[in-house]
Amino acid sequence: MQQLVIIGGDAAGMSAASQVRRMQPELGITVFERGSYTSYAACGIPYYVAGLVEDKGRLIARTPETFRKKFRINTLMHHEVLAIYPDKQRILVRDLDTGRDLSEPYDQLLIATGAQAVTTGFDGEQCDNVHQVSTLVHAEAMARALAGETIRKVVIVGGGYIGIEMAEALHLRGLEVSMVHRGPQVMATMDPDMGSFISEALRQSGIKLHLETALEGFVQEKGKVTGVLTSQGVFPADMVILGLGVRPTSRLAREAGIALGPKDSIRVNELQQTEQENIWAAGDCAQSFHLVSRRPVHIALGTVANRQGRVAGINLGGGYATFPGVVGTSIVKFMDTECSRTGLSERELKRLGWHYVQAVIEDHTMPRYYPGSSVMHVKVLAEKGSGKLLGVQIVGGPGAAKRIDTAAIALHAGMDLDTFINVDLSYAPPFSGVWDPIVTAAKQAIKEV
Amino acid sequence: MQQLVIIGGDAAGMSAASQVRRMQPELGITVFERGSYTSYAACGIPYYVAGLVEDKGRLIARTPETFRKKFRINTLMHHEVLAIYPDKQRILVRDLDTGRDLSEPYDQLLIATGAQAVTTGFDGEQCDNVHQVSTLVHAEAMARALAGETIRKVVIVGGGYIGIEMAEALHLRGLEVSMVHRGPQVMATMDPDMGSFISEALRQSGIKLHLETALEGFVQEKGKVTGVLTSQGVFPADMVILGLGVRPTSRLAREAGIALGPKDSIRVNELQQTEQENIWAAGDCAQSFHLVSRRPVHIALGTVANRQGRVAGINLGGGYATFPGVVGTSIVKFMDTECSRTGLSERELKRLGWHYVQAVIEDHTMPRYYPGSSVMHVKVLAEKGSGKLLGVQIVGGPGAAKRIDTAAIALHAGMDLDTFINVDLSYAPPFSGVWDPIVTAAKQAIKEV
Repeated sequence: MQQLVIIGGDAAGMSAASQVRRMQPELGITVFERGSYTSYAACGIPYYVAGLVEDKGRLIARTPETFRKKFRINTLMHHEVLAIYPDKQRILVRDLDTGRDLSEPYDQLLIATGAQAVTTGFDGEQCDNVHQVSTLVHAEAMARALAGETIRKVVIVGGGYIGIEMAEALHLRGLEVSMVHRGPQVMATMDPDMGSFISEALRQSGIKLHLETALEGFVQEKGKVTGVLTSQGVFPADMVILGLGVRPTSRLAREAGIALGPKDSIRVNELQQTEQENIWAAGDCAQSFHLVSRRPVHIALGTVANRQGRVAGINLGGGYATFPGVVGTSIVKFMDTECSRTGLSERELKRLGWHYVQAVIEDHTMPRYYPGSSVMHVKVLAEKGSGKLLGVQIVGGPGAAKRIDTAAIALHAGMDLDTFINVDLSYAPPFSGVWDPIVTAAKQAIKEV
Repeated sequence: MQQLVIIGGDAAGMSAASQVRRMQPELGITVFERGSYTSYAACGIPYYVAGLVEDKGRLIARTPETFRKKFRINTLMHHEVLAIYPDKQRILVRDLDTGRDLSEPYDQLLIATGAQAVTTGFDGEQCDNVHQVSTLVHAEAMARALAGETIRKVVIVGGGYIGIEMAEALHLRGLEVSMVHRGPQVMATMDPDMGSFISEALRQSGIKLHLETALEGFVQEKGKVTGVLTSQGVFPADMVILGLGVRPTSRLAREAGIALGPKDSIRVNELQQTEQENIWAAGDCAQSFHLVSRRPVHIALGTVANRQGRVAGINLGGGYATFPGVVGTSIVKFMDTECSRTGLSERELKRLGWHYVQAVIEDHTMPRYYPGSSVMHVKVLAEKGSGKLLGVQIVGGPGAAKRIDTAAIALHAGMDLDTFINVDLSYAPPFSGVWDPIVTAAKQAIKEV
């Protein structure tokens, strides 16, 4: 190979680029990034807005300069790829600073274009006091607005993980926060019985939570949104935050005739190859394989993006690696309430038509006699008959949510409940009860198998 | 079966008894316990001594009355079993209150006699200001001594997990704490390179740590120990705490001709049966099978005791269950320094003669930009050639140690590093970096495989 071209300079693209560089010291590697930043922690944005991280530079893991100098990767910022021509093995790139278009050849091409925030489609969304939360540019805009103006009321549209992290951030800044959410409980990736504990935590902190409330538009005055119009009335707003999820940025791939998968994510095999020769994809723009449902899925998360980027990089660097897939793990916190999930939810199992058993328990993060022990709710789902673990959801106090990782590993390994409950987990009073709450829930679920 | 007799009323014995009762509502179940308490959290003792748990009653999960009334288990306290006669299916029991000896028949017998603290063999150990840390009686004696007398200097003999938890407890009470430890670093279940971080944490808090120092006796004055004599001189002491580990309480079994295993623990199969018909054993008195070394081991921990008791109970109740074994997980903290380990250490691997690779890294509990992120050291050991995970050790700040559970599950499942690093672990800035430090260490170890 002479020339590796990568479209997109964030997690997946730069993981792949650095991996290839380590394996191929002399290969030409060019990265085209339309924005101004490489490899930054988008997940850190709420904490920057909250004021917990003072310098946004700390969210940047590696700058373009680092990639250029240390890794000798030709990292071109403000360069937007406009089209891919697989037959010619070329791409069309626009230099956004000069407006000049270039036709660039590639031997291998990695698409790592990421995902983009879902928009509302309503007029008013373009106003500068309506914010998305997906790039550093958005983060800067929010920080500027919060520093310079007198913002008191904020309406967050969407009660998913971005909505919840932003609710915490703005609550910490002392603002009056309302949240508008379409579903019966926040955190739709969890089942409503578990989501209700998070809804409760939001309300207890003073967040005005409006469930089963649909966004219907924005009220504008003098070029600013002053209210959010919903199925439950108008909520006044000095600032609006949108947290409606993301969708894969796959237009380039689609227009080049590359096959797409779920939610229009780019279809890839375990090596991260698309169905088009010499074209690869990794990160939030690409699909993953769900190891529990055995189906392709689209999951946009930094952990997955980094892992896919690494696998693509190893293969592009002349090695061999496969990305086995995901089990659907995620984690979020609001103040002292943590929540996490992995595997399939009850709702997902119903959609698949699988027969399952479940247990939902209330337990404690630590023995009840230990100071700081707090309530922890656990839901365990397992296959009827076989007892195979299918999913776990946790909501609880400090120290509760990260335990989901034990279930993630168990799901990856295909464990059944009988095996899981006998694993030698760590125990000492400052860390856990003698039976970890997940194990207690699993023991109870066994009775239903 | 007419009559199930259980010797020992703590974790394993009472787990088994309650399990059997659930399955066999009418079976006669008698428990003989020589002490005054059932089912208490011995692991909570340091926190009671520290003053973090005010009422020692909170350490008792279930009282003898609860077992008698709620579970209809004939729970006889202050009854010491003196001998087992397998041929006659009888035991000899002494009622310690009356001094009367009884001969009791059994159809099935479960030995759950636990473990006892290792003694020093030196004169002075019997003085009432020298304390072991294994029963509630010891806890009461320490609490009484700390409340009533003017104790300023405490010497802890042994830098294992009991020694470290007691160092924290007594440091929290404002005492001047010295620790005498025979090995090159504290926490001998970890390798010295990792143990050194814990030694450092002890010293930084002002604990006077004397490593490579052997206990040689006690200096006595008027029936009290006033100093601890060691290979490095005499350390003055108003109170001495012994934390020299435990050994299985297996004398009864040995005298009855029941086969013993490692460290004189009672030999059992996966069902918790001894090699003697109708006699079972579970908990700290019994051996376990180590799933990584594939050898029998003795590990005295509440988690294992409860699991073994449950399995014995299911089998005694007419069901069927097996205890697969352990992977050697443990966890402890000293102030803000947490440490944990699972699998085999480098020292254990050398003893086995196995070929291994390793990585030792320094990383952070959370992204460095996130407030409260602290340093976390991880050591990963894997089999040379196959890359099979063999062991993990962690030392770090708050939130570091409990992550060992991911490695425990991976070891139980027999995962190799390549599989482990691709597992979908949870990530959000308040919980972890995008690559969990254990995964980062595993990625580095892969290069050596």
